[in-house]
Amino acid sequence: MKIAVLGSTGSIGTSTLDVVRKYPDLYQVVGLSAGTNTGLLADQVAEFSPRYVSMADHDGAAELRQRLDGADVEIGNGEEGAVEAAILPEADMVVAAIAGSAGLAPTLAAVQAGKDVALANKESMVMAGALMTREAERNGGSIVPVDSEHSAIFQLLRGHEPREIRKIILTASGGPFLHHTAEQLDHVTPEEALNHPRWKMGKKVTTDSASLMNKGLEILEAHWLFGLPAERIEVVVHPQSIIHSMVEFVDGTVFAQMSEPDMKGPIAYALSCPERLADITTPLDFARLAELTFLAPDLERFPALRLAYEAMRAGGLMPAVMNAANEVAVEQFHELKIGFTAMSRLIETVMSRFRNAGDTDLESVMAADLWARREAAAVIEELKNNR
Amino acid sequence: MKIAVLGSTGSIGTSTLDVVRKYPDLYQVVGLSAGTNTGLLADQVAEFSPRYVSMADHDGAAELRQRLDGADVEIGNGEEGAVEAAILPEADMVVAAIAGSAGLAPTLAAVQAGKDVALANKESMVMAGALMTREAERNGGSIVPVDSEHSAIFQLLRGHEPREIRKIILTASGGPFLHHTAEQLDHVTPEEALNHPRWKMGKKVTTDSASLMNKGLEILEAHWLFGLPAERIEVVVHPQSIIHSMVEFVDGTVFAQMSEPDMKGPIAYALSCPERLADITTPLDFARLAELTFLAPDLERFPALRLAYEAMRAGGLMPAVMNAANEVAVEQFHELKIGFTAMSRLIETVMSRFRNAGDTDLESVMAADLWARREAAAVIEELKNNR
Repeated sequence: MKIAVLGSTGSIGTSTLDVVRKYPDLYQVVGLSAGTNTGLLADQVAEFSPRYVSMADHDGAAELRQRLDGADVEIGNGEEGAVEAAILPEADMVVAAIAGSAGLAPTLAAVQAGKDVALANKESMVMAGALMTREAERNGGSIVPVDSEHSAIFQLLRGHEPREIRKIILTASGGPFLHHTAEQLDHVTPEEALNHPRWKMGKKVTTDSASLMNKGLEILEAHWLFGLPAERIEVVVHPQSIIHSMVEFVDGTVFAQMSEPDMKGPIAYALSCPERLADITTPLDFARLAELTFLAPDLERFPALRLAYEAMRAGGLMPAVMNAANEVAVEQFHELKIGFTAMSRLIETVMSRFRNAGDTDLESVMAADLWARREAAAVIEELKNNR
Repeated sequence: MKIAVLGSTGSIGTSTLDVVRKYPDLYQVVGLSAGTNTGLLADQVAEFSPRYVSMADHDGAAELRQRLDGADVEIGNGEEGAVEAAILPEADMVVAAIAGSAGLAPTLAAVQAGKDVALANKESMVMAGALMTREAERNGGSIVPVDSEHSAIFQLLRGHEPREIRKIILTASGGPFLHHTAEQLDHVTPEEALNHPRWKMGKKVTTDSASLMNKGLEILEAHWLFGLPAERIEVVVHPQSIIHSMVEFVDGTVFAQMSEPDMKGPIAYALSCPERLADITTPLDFARLAELTFLAPDLERFPALRLAYEAMRAGGLMPAVMNAANEVAVEQFHELKIGFTAMSRLIETVMSRFRNAGDTDLESVMAADLWARREAAAVIEELKNNR
């Protein structure tokens, strides 16, 4: 199978290439796109010989060209470059692993080109789930989840009819601040937020995990991937991150999908399903496993999850607005401009000011995204002036 | 669907009738067989109006006839009666829930009559697994497990190919003596053995749970139901009995099947599969769930499980010999003739004296069963004389 990897130098991208490295007879890399890490992309080009690669900006592309002096590879840049990598005619599957809203255009392009998409960029489903699923259906490609929770549900649902399902239960690690008081949360630093107890991930998703916004984005992603309403999507905190998610059937039976926390599991499944590749994750040793525990998420201390349910119920463009406000909030938190708990207050204020609409084409989604970013900046200014 | 319930007054039998009571439009009871509880069988006849019922012996049948004075029901007795109930021409499915080796003949008769069999009588698979599976294949009926562990695996395997499976993992509650020392085990009473922490079951299976022989019988049952060798069947102790069993796939992923411990779950699934009946067991409330823990079974303190693995590896008639010796051991333990830990020593001695053979027709199985019972009695005599 020929694959293109968008976001190849990130956490998901490198894990994807680990799987390809293990099964070189099954997978051939034809395209790569990266952000700013020219060194690593150059190494990947040398190892996997893709036909096309792209960097986030022109300077990066120029630097890469220099490093790859003489290599037989086409080099693009910018959103056009990423889109080009997403629609390479020879690619069967596109691994969409660009972080944040920057992933929407290339991911959507892959879907519209009829590619099977291994979706790690949850933001594209949060922002434009209706559009993404509509386009996938129209163009005949499938969208296979790479998030560990959605992969778990996708795996568990195989062979089952929708009428058998009562609800799905996404597990959340609870992040590094699970047992912090509201007071303590006010004073956590970006450094502390990046110290995730279970998963090694990128900066954006790790911060979202700490605020539970990651789970908020995931319930929206699940809503579109599995066609379920808010009341049939539950979240339970499971600090050990061994159970990646669960399905409850109408009779009361629950199926859980488990493994050591390792993204290679869901990535490999997205590449190979419905088959399974041998020896991907370290087998669980139950006799040595610490106990598995569960608790209800606290929506008082972690309002981001509540906001996501509200956005899902509101529908239309509200999830895109929430997502954009969250991206601004995370950025500002890491620049020490706002505190940890101010993030969700910022998002809630922006959401409360939005006049929602049902349109879900790309222009209206991008317009809502832009509006929310500007509004978020304005709210931060207001806060500063009121201080 | 028309069903016959063998062992209708026992724990599985009454739970089966609970399911029928909840879904009277889906299931019609056409036959029942019971042991000695005429009062309850009479009530069941009044409620479900089967065409045929049978009691274990002639006196019981006579008493039942008196109680049911004038009711339009045929009454049989003995093994012939149970077999008659197992092969009623109008029955589509037979729930085989007679405890112990007494269940073999009627269960096999149902299989040979081409019925779909909901199998709660694990002993028939332990004693004659080769024969049972061969006859099911030949006569076109299916054998659907009712044991919670095997039902869990059966449910989890649905939609998956054998090549995807690395192993199955049966969970064991560990029984009431999980944390007893070897010294303490020497002095436990039958009453203590019947005090199971999680499941309310019959006397034989509860005692087997305390010694882990129940899990030993279950690995043999799993061996035949799922066609897996000993090295691909694992046991892990999980005291909470929430996870009923697990499947490990070749990639390292594990699926677990969970529910509140309630036999109505697996019974209803056996009756309705591949569909699921609504609202069978109380949904799990993960936020209120105590932690789930796991530990390796201790084959030193609970040698019964080791013996079962040895019987599986030996094959042929050895599992039947082990099963018969165990039935004698449990009986003698409850009559206070031997201690708790003497049970497995007795079984091991009987197994060590058996000259195994590969024949697995009914006569050789019954002959091995008889030999083992006599040998077990002889060993007990020897022990008494050596005291």
